[in-house]
Amino acid sequence: MTQPAANLRIDADRLWSSLMEMAQIGPGVAGGNNRQTVTDADGEGRALFQRWCEAAGCTMGLDQMGNMFARREGTDPDALPVYVGSHLDTQPTGGKYDGVLGVLGGLELIRTINDLGIKTKHPIVVTNWTNEEGTRFAPAMLSSGVFAGVHTQDWAYARVDAEGKSFGDELQRIGWRGDEEVGARKMHAFFELHIEQGPILEAEGVDIGVVTHGQGLSWTQVTVLGKDSHTGSTPMPMRKNAGLAMARILEKVEEIALSHAPDAVGAAGHIDVYPNSRNVIPGKAVFTVDFRSPTLSVIEDMEARLRKEAQAIVDAMGLEVSFEKVGGFDPVAFDEGCVEAVRSAAERLGYSHRNIISGAGHDACWINRVAPTAMIMCPCVDGLSHNEAEEITKDWAKAGADVLLHAVVETAEIVE
Amino acid sequence: MTQPAANLRIDADRLWSSLMEMAQIGPGVAGGNNRQTVTDADGEGRALFQRWCEAAGCTMGLDQMGNMFARREGTDPDALPVYVGSHLDTQPTGGKYDGVLGVLGGLELIRTINDLGIKTKHPIVVTNWTNEEGTRFAPAMLSSGVFAGVHTQDWAYARVDAEGKSFGDELQRIGWRGDEEVGARKMHAFFELHIEQGPILEAEGVDIGVVTHGQGLSWTQVTVLGKDSHTGSTPMPMRKNAGLAMARILEKVEEIALSHAPDAVGAAGHIDVYPNSRNVIPGKAVFTVDFRSPTLSVIEDMEARLRKEAQAIVDAMGLEVSFEKVGGFDPVAFDEGCVEAVRSAAERLGYSHRNIISGAGHDACWINRVAPTAMIMCPCVDGLSHNEAEEITKDWAKAGADVLLHAVVETAEIVE
Repeated sequence: MTQPAANLRIDADRLWSSLMEMAQIGPGVAGGNNRQTVTDADGEGRALFQRWCEAAGCTMGLDQMGNMFARREGTDPDALPVYVGSHLDTQPTGGKYDGVLGVLGGLELIRTINDLGIKTKHPIVVTNWTNEEGTRFAPAMLSSGVFAGVHTQDWAYARVDAEGKSFGDELQRIGWRGDEEVGARKMHAFFELHIEQGPILEAEGVDIGVVTHGQGLSWTQVTVLGKDSHTGSTPMPMRKNAGLAMARILEKVEEIALSHAPDAVGAAGHIDVYPNSRNVIPGKAVFTVDFRSPTLSVIEDMEARLRKEAQAIVDAMGLEVSFEKVGGFDPVAFDEGCVEAVRSAAERLGYSHRNIISGAGHDACWINRVAPTAMIMCPCVDGLSHNEAEEITKDWAKAGADVLLHAVVETAEIVE
Repeated sequence: MTQPAANLRIDADRLWSSLMEMAQIGPGVAGGNNRQTVTDADGEGRALFQRWCEAAGCTMGLDQMGNMFARREGTDPDALPVYVGSHLDTQPTGGKYDGVLGVLGGLELIRTINDLGIKTKHPIVVTNWTNEEGTRFAPAMLSSGVFAGVHTQDWAYARVDAEGKSFGDELQRIGWRGDEEVGARKMHAFFELHIEQGPILEAEGVDIGVVTHGQGLSWTQVTVLGKDSHTGSTPMPMRKNAGLAMARILEKVEEIALSHAPDAVGAAGHIDVYPNSRNVIPGKAVFTVDFRSPTLSVIEDMEARLRKEAQAIVDAMGLEVSFEKVGGFDPVAFDEGCVEAVRSAAERLGYSHRNIISGAGHDACWINRVAPTAMIMCPCVDGLSHNEAEEITKDWAKAGADVLLHAVVETAEIVE
């Protein structure tokens, strides 16, 4: 394969301008976005994306999950397309870049090779995966999951939001339920550009994260049962304080994660105590422990130790505990060839880079099951994401999209 | 003073029947009561109490806070009355006995001495204090607090509920805002019978708690500020996990309270983390530490140590903490003479008894500031209160009301 020349670069101003224009649709309340999946705003964003793609000479495909596929033809009618993309939907108080950079970065690479008259053997398809965020309809990465055979389409259609509306009905309502069978497309490769959503690249001053793995995830919901009792009239030895047992378990979560440093992480983001009244000792505590690691055996060890340590803590206090696994996915090892295409692109372009593990779930994690896949990360300010204050610089966006361009064009094979 | 004879007893069936009849008003959803203060149900309960009191020959007084005073005359026109009572209002999911036993136990003692033609030198007044619970209009013990000069009446009137209705307006609306100046009455003594709301008496098989002190209370609301960040993409050393800092502080709360065993207690009943999402490390934790002790210096020591230990914990983690004292009252030492009247009554009647410290706040704690006061406690099943499943036995109610009868009649001085 011929490598593209190092002076092949995207147009950063055009990319940035498209990012800002898309951000006008479904604005948030604090400078970010509320363009949740299969809302009217999502429909409006999709229409804008389609207009841009068609203006760039692409044809748009749409499958039954609303996944959008903007295709630029290659020179070989038998060659499978190289796919790029991410998602245009946002969190309810989301940022302007999470997902959007990966879609519009893909569009920008099409525009750039159009400008330069570059032909590729393989077609290039820019994808917008429906409902990556999962905040309106759980779970996250719903439609890439159906595409990759992780979920059935019927199950996905039946997901309901907080108002009881179903995903399938809402997709139909906004007019973006296509006819194409989901997952029928075969891919030569898939590349996803995404902001890091973590603090590492910025802290180290590195331009590009070459994503080698996606962390596996385990969510264990822990329920500690004690006994509601009055904070004043219950002597200390007669208390069954579920909040205190929870505190002790949270300390163990930290200890367990640190025992698998540096790649494993653990914390509880969800914590509720009941009845949550100032003068009632909590009789119940419910919290979800999030463990992640790029190594499956480490996740399994952390889960097992959590259960053992938590049981020992509540036994010593005369309380009860139960566990429910409420979420999880196995670690992902991205395709070595695709990862190397990303790394060599960064190298060729002169961007600093380091290997990185994706801590969050991404569409690429599911697509990796059905196609050779890799991800490119660029820094974001302060690691902040899922927040309207999410921010990146134009230079960071440019570096990420340049690397995407090179990795994709090399994989799609420039026709001389 | 002549002590009443040991065979002077209340009518347990009549007391129980009145408790059950009152519980028909403002029923709960699970066998208890929702007769919150200055609701229509509260008005209905008050009317029933007034009818009963008038049938027992009492005259009803009503002050500007809605406090009700049912008076049985004494033989000496110059003698100050002996007051008894508690409150008829309940928690939204409250029990049938918390407060009610103290009011209807007072009524039963009037009925009993009426039956037997007993005359006392001092009048006896049975009181229903408005809004002891404080769940609809904070704080608790609102009207006994105004009576005792702890709060001003204007401030009390201006308290609003969750719907924005003011206490003063609602009291007027239900028709129980009287003309009498609050706190103008002078008392010879005040006795309050109440369920323990704790597990000690039942666990030890003791009939009567002779309440010597009310625990002092300190509520410190602690706010830990860390940084919201993704549970997956934030390396362990870069986290500022406010939930973990909270867990460490909760362990210290336990340690601090235990260092002042056996009478001091400490716990956090109120715990909130933000944004409380499974995949976001809590950037903020807000919780209220409840410390209690019958000794003021112990409370002060616990408060100071909490602040010091919490500061050290967050400093070590690179977080921030702030403290707000959101509630508190000083320990109460009840009147030695009144306490002795309770103890000797239990002794004379052959009921097992022990000294006990009230862990909860009660109207008696405020009235103790303006009159010689004591409390009598009886067991409740499993220490359960502020719960529709709150339960006592008829025997426990009888023992408590018998002791109330004797303590009050002795203090009011039987006229031979």
